Amino acid sequence: MDISKVNALSYEDFVDIFGNVVEKCPIIAAAVWSRRPFVSLSALETAFSEFVDALPESGKEGILRCHPDLAGRDLQRGTLTRESLEEQAGAGLDALESAEASCMAQLNKEYKERFRFPFVICARMNDKTNILRQLSERCQNECTVERAHSIEEVKKICHLRLQDLVCHDAPNKL
Amino acid sequence: MDISKVNALSYEDFVDIFGNVVEKCPIIAAAVWSRRPFVSLSALETAFSEFVDALPESGKEGILRCHPDLAGRDLQRGTLTRESLEEQAGAGLDALESAEASCMAQLNKEYKERFRFPFVICARMNDKTNILRQLSERCQNECTVERAHSIEEVKKICHLRLQDLVCHDAPNKL
Repeated sequence: MDISKVNALSYEDFVDIFGNVVEKCPIIAAAVWSRRPFVSLSALETAFSEFVDALPESGKEGILRCHPDLAGRDLQRGTLTRESLEEQAGAGLDALESAEASCMAQLNKEYKERFRFPFVICARMNDKTNILRQLSERCQNECTVERAHSIEEVKKICHLRLQDLVCHDAPNKL
Repeated sequence: MDISKVNALSYEDFVDIFGNVVEKCPIIAAAVWSRRPFVSLSALETAFSEFVDALPESGKEGILRCHPDLAGRDLQRGTLTRESLEEQAGAGLDALESAEASCMAQLNKEYKERFRFPFVICARMNDKTNILRQLSERCQNECTVERAHSIEEVKKICHLRLQDLVCHDAPNKL
């Protein structure tokens, strides 16, 4: 889809298509629609980022808490969103060895006890080894640092999900 | 459930239970969880209202756009949330006569063209005749007035959904 087609969408169709660009937060797509027309894919992405940045800290924590655990309950139960399933599977998180799965479960638990939100990372930019290493390292972060870091990961996920849906900006043909 | 049980919930369980208190906006419940413990049901409700009020105007429009049309596509397709289905059915919107259904569809269309969000009303506090009358009347409102009015309806819906989930405040037994 190119940006002119995006700009012509009703809010219903826009939310159907972009409602999970930020995981389980269709309100964000529904709010961003108010800012159309978008001059480019980059402008659309900026509108999502700016909405997220303008939320109070509790709202940012709310976004994080709408994310599933990596290799967690939703993956096991088959209740992940389509996007999350593809991303977790792509990083090899649906095929962990027993020791890796135990380690991931334990670190996820420690992380959530410390920060009160789940570990969020852009799985498509990492593999399972790297994800486990970062999970372990980020458990040591100070809370406000970690929240900010996590929101940057949400934006990376959003960036890639938008790229899947909208054509890259083409140079103007004059 | 009483408020002490609410306060003991993990964020995962809290979002599972309260995630649709504001229609299709689990981020709001996930954010409100940061404010626990709540001294009462009223305090919990206030936390939801204050989060909504603190959103930018586009965010409030986002909330409204996450609501289904009354007697609309989602009702016909069976894709309403459980809460919305019960509320719309309770007001008789699942059993409109042909003329009423045409009138509702036409007014919903006019309303959305004017305001760029759907008509939201607390169906449990109204019947179908009253809903049709208010839909017709509110189509005449000025846009900022109507947005504010609609958000108050969201809060009424939230109030009743919370009452379904949490026991009323009992006097302290000393």
